[in-house]
Amino acid sequence: MKEFQVVGIGNALVDILSHVEEEFLHTNGVEKGVMTLIETERAAELYDRMGPATEVSGGSGANTIAGIAALGGRTAYVGKVKDDQLGAIFTHDIRALGATYDTPRLARDAEHETGRCMVLVTPDGERSMSTYLGASEFLSPDDIDTGMMANTEWLYLEGYRFDGPDSHEAFARAIAACRAGGGHVAITLSDPFCVERHREAFRKLIREDIDLLFANEHEILSLYQTDRLETALEAARADCRTVACTVGPRGAILLRGEDTLEVPTEAKSVVDATGAGDLFAAGFLHGVVHGRDLATCGRMGCIAAGEVIGHIGARPEADLAELFHNAGL
Amino acid sequence: MKEFQVVGIGNALVDILSHVEEEFLHTNGVEKGVMTLIETERAAELYDRMGPATEVSGGSGANTIAGIAALGGRTAYVGKVKDDQLGAIFTHDIRALGATYDTPRLARDAEHETGRCMVLVTPDGERSMSTYLGASEFLSPDDIDTGMMANTEWLYLEGYRFDGPDSHEAFARAIAACRAGGGHVAITLSDPFCVERHREAFRKLIREDIDLLFANEHEILSLYQTDRLETALEAARADCRTVACTVGPRGAILLRGEDTLEVPTEAKSVVDATGAGDLFAAGFLHGVVHGRDLATCGRMGCIAAGEVIGHIGARPEADLAELFHNAGL
Repeated sequence: MKEFQVVGIGNALVDILSHVEEEFLHTNGVEKGVMTLIETERAAELYDRMGPATEVSGGSGANTIAGIAALGGRTAYVGKVKDDQLGAIFTHDIRALGATYDTPRLARDAEHETGRCMVLVTPDGERSMSTYLGASEFLSPDDIDTGMMANTEWLYLEGYRFDGPDSHEAFARAIAACRAGGGHVAITLSDPFCVERHREAFRKLIREDIDLLFANEHEILSLYQTDRLETALEAARADCRTVACTVGPRGAILLRGEDTLEVPTEAKSVVDATGAGDLFAAGFLHGVVHGRDLATCGRMGCIAAGEVIGHIGARPEADLAELFHNAGL
Repeated sequence: MKEFQVVGIGNALVDILSHVEEEFLHTNGVEKGVMTLIETERAAELYDRMGPATEVSGGSGANTIAGIAALGGRTAYVGKVKDDQLGAIFTHDIRALGATYDTPRLARDAEHETGRCMVLVTPDGERSMSTYLGASEFLSPDDIDTGMMANTEWLYLEGYRFDGPDSHEAFARAIAACRAGGGHVAITLSDPFCVERHREAFRKLIREDIDLLFANEHEILSLYQTDRLETALEAARADCRTVACTVGPRGAILLRGEDTLEVPTEAKSVVDATGAGDLFAAGFLHGVVHGRDLATCGRMGCIAAGEVIGHIGARPEADLAELFHNAGL
């Protein structure tokens, strides 16, 4: 038995959550429903204009690992914070769930602080994110523990982390070690604009090294530069063994070899859409590592996503294992 | 017209909120339902054992000022943080509501960090608090802007802030300036153990300088060392012009001169009792500065308290002015 079922790599961020009216987005030039990278100065300016906020640990891949840990999975996370107060909060929250997290921190006197994501939640439950990457951008190949990578069943890569000078190399190192140990590799495309920035690198990676691709419809359309979902899905099917594409309120479309399955959403209401894709991946991977069939993996993904969008914050509050049990899974 | 309606002085803290089972309190020696002061080492130990948490600005007096600011009041807060990330969060959140907050911060290289309060919420909605005072303990007379104190209708003192070497003197300075400017002074007793620690100082202060006393029944019983609420209330009536004593699910008892009024609670359900007393004071003071009668002040207090215990966190989420309006106030 391998020590880990899933090891995730991503941007280690603390979310700063605040409710705003639609108007606030327009006035402050925040694009709705997507993630925008911002610099220190813009981060300070936007924060000054925001209302009172709540801080919770976030980071897309970290939310997924938190979900897997909450389900009792053997899991670890790799992502960079600074030795500062937000870094301590991030570290506490993921370890408290039982995940292993030992990535070396930037030193206390480093210039860049722990990264943060300002999440503006509009009354429709949609979230618009402005991310200051800070320390998370400095993940380097030296941060990859190849022994850990060789000892995991699945490696889960967050597409967002492609936004960094040394991270492609870090990903390559992690993938090589995981493969050498007989493990599998999954990736999430994270965001359509992230796909824009790294389309060729993503395509090459998916063709050569990815066993399981997570995406939403906007991301997969951008990846294959088409406006027809069917075209994009068929292209993905040719590139990758398993594809799990979330399609918002319609649930998810799953592809494996020649099989195609649709799984309906399990969401009851949308309070805050933050973390929907992250928790879909957590539920799906939980099914995968327990050898469940594709349809069950998809339902687990949809139940976990449905839980997290029913409240503020991107990490589960209810007992996901109990929700799976109640659904007969 | 004075520049401020209410200026509050208290411990500037960030709350670290986590749900726990009753069992956790016993295992970790946390006394239920009260506030315990803890040192750095105990804070680190307890945090290590806690589950994932949410961070929100807190501090009893600051919650009251936040409530008054949210109601559109002209208000300011005085309390000490460090120039660190939690200090920035505290500062942002109270300013974002429109309150003035300019207390000098401890320097970045100071030993003590911004204070924090670990709030453990049990399934019954009760909160048990472990407070590391940090920077907030270092509020000194030099931090009191006497011009501000002379220019407020009401000065609101948090009893908790009596736990500090220089703060009695800071309170005295603030009271003298407020009185000299023709203002009035209110205090909240904060906590029965806080009353134990400072009983004589509180009694003297109340007799000599306090126009409006906020307390709950445990605190007022401790203040007058009796187990009969009626005895304690009559003693308070003799000491102070107006007394507002919250009595948990029964609401509040209000005394002014020979008058006694009972106001029923407006709470629908208790999700998290944190901030109930703080928001009662906010609603009550809002009534006072708008010249409303005693019964209306009490109802405003109960409505504001009822809102804040209906969700996690000690600052209001709903529009309190709208709730007052809907109640015909």
